[in-house]
Amino acid sequence: MIKGSTRLVAIIGSPVAQVKSPENFNAAFAQSGSDVAMIAMDIAPEGVADFLSMARQWKNLDGFVVTIPHKQAVAAGIDEITPRAALLGATNVVKREAGGRLIGDMVDGMGFVEAARRNGFVPDAKRALVIGGGGAGSAIAHALCEAGVASLAISDIDIARAERLAGLLRAEFPATQIGTQAGDLGALDLVVNATPLGMKEGDPVPLAENALAALKSSALVADVVTSPEVTPFLKAAMARGLPIQTGPQMAKAQLALLGGHMGVL
Amino acid sequence: MIKGSTRLVAIIGSPVAQVKSPENFNAAFAQSGSDVAMIAMDIAPEGVADFLSMARQWKNLDGFVVTIPHKQAVAAGIDEITPRAALLGATNVVKREAGGRLIGDMVDGMGFVEAARRNGFVPDAKRALVIGGGGAGSAIAHALCEAGVASLAISDIDIARAERLAGLLRAEFPATQIGTQAGDLGALDLVVNATPLGMKEGDPVPLAENALAALKSSALVADVVTSPEVTPFLKAAMARGLPIQTGPQMAKAQLALLGGHMGVL
Repeated sequence: MIKGSTRLVAIIGSPVAQVKSPENFNAAFAQSGSDVAMIAMDIAPEGVADFLSMARQWKNLDGFVVTIPHKQAVAAGIDEITPRAALLGATNVVKREAGGRLIGDMVDGMGFVEAARRNGFVPDAKRALVIGGGGAGSAIAHALCEAGVASLAISDIDIARAERLAGLLRAEFPATQIGTQAGDLGALDLVVNATPLGMKEGDPVPLAENALAALKSSALVADVVTSPEVTPFLKAAMARGLPIQTGPQMAKAQLALLGGHMGVL
Repeated sequence: MIKGSTRLVAIIGSPVAQVKSPENFNAAFAQSGSDVAMIAMDIAPEGVADFLSMARQWKNLDGFVVTIPHKQAVAAGIDEITPRAALLGATNVVKREAGGRLIGDMVDGMGFVEAARRNGFVPDAKRALVIGGGGAGSAIAHALCEAGVASLAISDIDIARAERLAGLLRAEFPATQIGTQAGDLGALDLVVNATPLGMKEGDPVPLAENALAALKSSALVADVVTSPEVTPFLKAAMARGLPIQTGPQMAKAQLALLGGHMGVL
């Protein structure tokens, strides 16, 4: 139970009713017996700048996780960000130093890669396709390059966005083959849906059935959507006997990374 | 356990490690099964203005309790305050309306009077001495006048402060006899320590032993200090067989008033 002495971490976003981080973190804090709690704060976009100013003066706050739609505004408004957060223009976790300084990182992609490792995927020299070049997709694409994939394709209905991201990553990872065309589907080791498709009933699947059929049987099919836990896309992959990775698995793998950055896990 | 959907109330102050409101409120929320939690936020004075701007945009915040040293700054910075909060220039509880409007009240004094009633004290036509004319003392003095005491003495080492408060209250409660001299100690029905004396070991008692000895045996002796629960002043009163009222009793009696203003209890 929260007391006056309890140290706090937050997850800020809007809406937040659906986020699972408070339950995951609070269960971890209860298990370790730490007097720390996570709260979810539903902050309107107009309130983010004031939140950041206030957070510097909020002495029992150790840090905060950032979710949609604040990842870009927070990256732009804090005191220091890691090179990968700067490259991606987004921050999903911020540590508050004792003096009030706010330091951000972007570990969405690392969480994804960690979950994939737990599912037996070894990134080194592998071929990956990331569908969706937005916040989640760009973080995952970056982390896959960092983890040593041989080739990466970024597919997005906004071709200019995919090209821009590919260009950024090519400059950072010259040894990796980076493009915006899926190429030979049968050669892929990993396919990731990093679009919101699958959250709402009736959404089209992010990859056509015949494309799924072309994948080799060892290819890992992953989704970033957390609700439903098993999306129609993942169901289709399972029906074809392919290994899958869910959004909640990615969130769970990220827990230690987020908690580590904030210094509470 | 706190989830993404949990609505929040806060207590803001600095420091906050000693405050008991989170435990009291969270026990009440657990008992009623409400998905609401109270957190304690240690906000430096420089952060209060940003806190208020941010609170207007904090959609899952229902309100906040205010403690030392922010009661005056919050009264000055919110959108609406009750007449008694305006008179006292202080606010100890704020409701956040759905649209973000912040409405403050000052119920410290009412909490004190409610606790005194629970201890058998009927304010009507009684004679009271309030030692300390600061935040707590002025709120208690005001609430005692509102509750109908016949006479009220406000004693403060800062005589000008006591005179100023007495003047304010005389204008508001012309039928009450209000002064800054204790007068006949044997006629008093209530003596309240509203100074911080007793919080630290070695503090002088707020009323000399021979003054305590002059009180009649039915006089209620009260303290606003919450830690220690029974202050040396209250111990001395108990040793003389006088009925006492502790700081935590006042805090407990205030719970329903605070929760009612925020709309969560």
